[in-house]
Amino acid sequence: MDPEIISKLSSIVGSDNCKTTTAELYTYSMDASIHKSMPDAVVRPRSAQEVSEIVKLANEHKFPVIPRGGGSALCGHSVPVDGGVIIDLQRMDTIKDIRVEDLYAVCEPGVVCDDLNAALKKEGFWIPGPSSSNVANIGGMVATNSSGDKALKYGATRDYVIGLEVVLPTGEIVHAGSRTIKNSGGYQFEKFFCGMEGTLGIITEIITRVIPLPEKKAAAIAVFNELEHAGQCVSNIIAARLIPSGLELMSNVCIRAVNKALDLGLPEVEAILLIEVDGEAAVISDKIKKVSDICKESGAISVEFTDDEKRIAELWKGRKGMIPALSKLNEDYVTVMLADDMSVPVSKVPMAVKEFQMISDKYEIIVASYGHAGDGNLHTKVLMDPTRKSHWEQAEKAVNEIYDVVLKLGGTVTGEHGVAITKAPFFHKERAALIPTMKAIKRAMDPNNIMNPHKLMDWEGGFITHLRYKIERE
Amino acid sequence: MDPEIISKLSSIVGSDNCKTTTAELYTYSMDASIHKSMPDAVVRPRSAQEVSEIVKLANEHKFPVIPRGGGSALCGHSVPVDGGVIIDLQRMDTIKDIRVEDLYAVCEPGVVCDDLNAALKKEGFWIPGPSSSNVANIGGMVATNSSGDKALKYGATRDYVIGLEVVLPTGEIVHAGSRTIKNSGGYQFEKFFCGMEGTLGIITEIITRVIPLPEKKAAAIAVFNELEHAGQCVSNIIAARLIPSGLELMSNVCIRAVNKALDLGLPEVEAILLIEVDGEAAVISDKIKKVSDICKESGAISVEFTDDEKRIAELWKGRKGMIPALSKLNEDYVTVMLADDMSVPVSKVPMAVKEFQMISDKYEIIVASYGHAGDGNLHTKVLMDPTRKSHWEQAEKAVNEIYDVVLKLGGTVTGEHGVAITKAPFFHKERAALIPTMKAIKRAMDPNNIMNPHKLMDWEGGFITHLRYKIERE
Repeated sequence: MDPEIISKLSSIVGSDNCKTTTAELYTYSMDASIHKSMPDAVVRPRSAQEVSEIVKLANEHKFPVIPRGGGSALCGHSVPVDGGVIIDLQRMDTIKDIRVEDLYAVCEPGVVCDDLNAALKKEGFWIPGPSSSNVANIGGMVATNSSGDKALKYGATRDYVIGLEVVLPTGEIVHAGSRTIKNSGGYQFEKFFCGMEGTLGIITEIITRVIPLPEKKAAAIAVFNELEHAGQCVSNIIAARLIPSGLELMSNVCIRAVNKALDLGLPEVEAILLIEVDGEAAVISDKIKKVSDICKESGAISVEFTDDEKRIAELWKGRKGMIPALSKLNEDYVTVMLADDMSVPVSKVPMAVKEFQMISDKYEIIVASYGHAGDGNLHTKVLMDPTRKSHWEQAEKAVNEIYDVVLKLGGTVTGEHGVAITKAPFFHKERAALIPTMKAIKRAMDPNNIMNPHKLMDWEGGFITHLRYKIERE
Repeated sequence: MDPEIISKLSSIVGSDNCKTTTAELYTYSMDASIHKSMPDAVVRPRSAQEVSEIVKLANEHKFPVIPRGGGSALCGHSVPVDGGVIIDLQRMDTIKDIRVEDLYAVCEPGVVCDDLNAALKKEGFWIPGPSSSNVANIGGMVATNSSGDKALKYGATRDYVIGLEVVLPTGEIVHAGSRTIKNSGGYQFEKFFCGMEGTLGIITEIITRVIPLPEKKAAAIAVFNELEHAGQCVSNIIAARLIPSGLELMSNVCIRAVNKALDLGLPEVEAILLIEVDGEAAVISDKIKKVSDICKESGAISVEFTDDEKRIAELWKGRKGMIPALSKLNEDYVTVMLADDMSVPVSKVPMAVKEFQMISDKYEIIVASYGHAGDGNLHTKVLMDPTRKSHWEQAEKAVNEIYDVVLKLGGTVTGEHGVAITKAPFFHKERAALIPTMKAIKRAMDPNNIMNPHKLMDWEGGFITHLRYKIERE
């Protein structure tokens, strides 16, 4: 990169916050995805004004800018495939205002989700976050419209954002939405920007709606010999108007994996459902009892339920430890982030899991299915040896087939992780008719194509690309 | 309009569904706003395919197309200011699918909100709608991101739309979103199109999330001598984490009006709050008791509360009859839809109402304030003689001042009705920095500017324009 540009970047953010050594750049060449690519520089601004100046400079010299928060994205969102400058927003980490009586909080993009929730908890309020809430930044949550295991009852990030400050691709600082709960003022940019993955601007302030913490929780763990029974059970619970705050499915591979890694002694059946309900203390026991009854009626061979906080935490332990546990299932294989986040209508979950298993059985790799069965959002992790070329080839085929199933079932290729690079080819298949409109809007808003280029609708290649892994053998 | 175009329109929708007589066009020259302008033709298509053909014809011959549902919009959304063809979507009124176990329903745009809710009620589910739910069409609710008196707890239309079929300004039929609860797939068009007011396309199918009906309701009516006490009471209820399903404010003018029209015998104090809570039957009495206690602690001079369905309906009667009641307050004045839907942060409601009253006192007209105090969404109705030029002049000044107050308090000029013409000048003030981006997107998506032109960011004139009223004297 031109030393003159580096010098200008330094003068905007201060030399301490402009990184160019190989060691520093290496750290920023990856996120939590399979991809890797080196940036030319990393800057760490402290204000919207500084972000604006960086973006204006990028337009002047036509270099890419890639916003980055906690780096926990799973599809290569902040991997600079074409080089350029990473804008690390983690220094912008101030919670500016909490107004529970007005049901909103205002924060900078670098605030970690759990930190905002720690502050909100003092007032008895919260926002739902992703499973990675201990590292995920609010800005990144908005940019990817992330969500997690509470989405069935509580929705995704887009349902909470009521206002945004954004540095547009021109460098202009604009405000969308407001501090009011309602707003029907024209184009809903504060919603549109959820999921734009840094391609239309850089979020520098978020106004998020906050909601009251539930008084009490209860959980049930239901064991099924047949996957279909577990699936029917999920539909029955929802149709009975008992909307759980969490409804997780573990398939057989996952059960074996957590048993091996965590010694939980779960029955190694076809499917286990972990169901959590929350609400007023006076009704919680009755609610979880109703859920348990439905589980039994739907064919569960055993159901345990409790409203004891400690026992609930234990029940969640297996689910929370899933990803590391999967990597320990087979000593030669590791968990690879592929096809990790498809969503289907809730009633289609058992069919999807069955078909994923059939696909997996055809190949040398292992596909483990688990996920938020209550909202139809499934995670599959591919277990493979990422140093082997043949495993990548098989994974590529399996993932293609998996997404075909998802689209056939009326689903979407991404429920909560986003598109970026890893899901781009499948996203193009799902959204073919809308891609030209996305590109037209991108061109209209970012004529120099500087904002996180070659992502989402603009990624043209395959998904086994720019790998962080070194392939060493066939 | 060129007879050749009329003939082509007729061949698309059938001659029975292509209207061109003056009497027919007159019916479509107005919606529920103050505006009026004659269309050149009205067509009533039955399918997305027919809509697409009409839009393609519009591009070929460069005439405006204006989508219209129930005609209940309050800001001139479907008034064809520049002539053109109104596309009446009321024949597309099929509820295509209801899948409560998957938490969604699919319907055509012409389905009336109450009709969808009648069908959902059989399964124990519903969606929240606007006060005009007996006439409002789902398509129009999406196009204006409408909401109503349940939004504090249940949100606006944008929070429910998970998928859309849209005829783009090019005539192409596209799908946004999906049948899944979660979706983080790139630009959220299904949310962005909420509030686009027919300027970016015509909605031909809606997939809406549905939610369980609450088991039981309870309501309280709290009487305050001081508006500030009522305002503080609202904040106290929310901060105590009791999120009511309805929280309505009536100011003094409104109380007098409903007393006069409906003989309800309400105390003619400064402010009355009507508070409704809902939820599980087992906790509802306790909940409304807590609300009532907070009302008393906040300075209410009397509080009545009940969980009797019949009594709750009586309590709502005054609020529901507000608009016709206001027209009867002063025999020479009628209710005019001006400045009718601003939203401020909840805690700013008393200050806003006070300032609106001070503005009103300066002029010969009357400004009546009421509204959804719980979500900060206020309605003011201007009471005036619309045949008098001087009243319009005074109303114009008052409305300008009112919106300045709203923006000063960090509010938005529209909470639930939209912008179209009546709010355009104030919307331009509120969103000045984003207007160029809105225009750029509009140009990119609708290069011939055929889709409901001159509305929203593209309305350049004042708001006292294209009046449906005849001004007869000074």
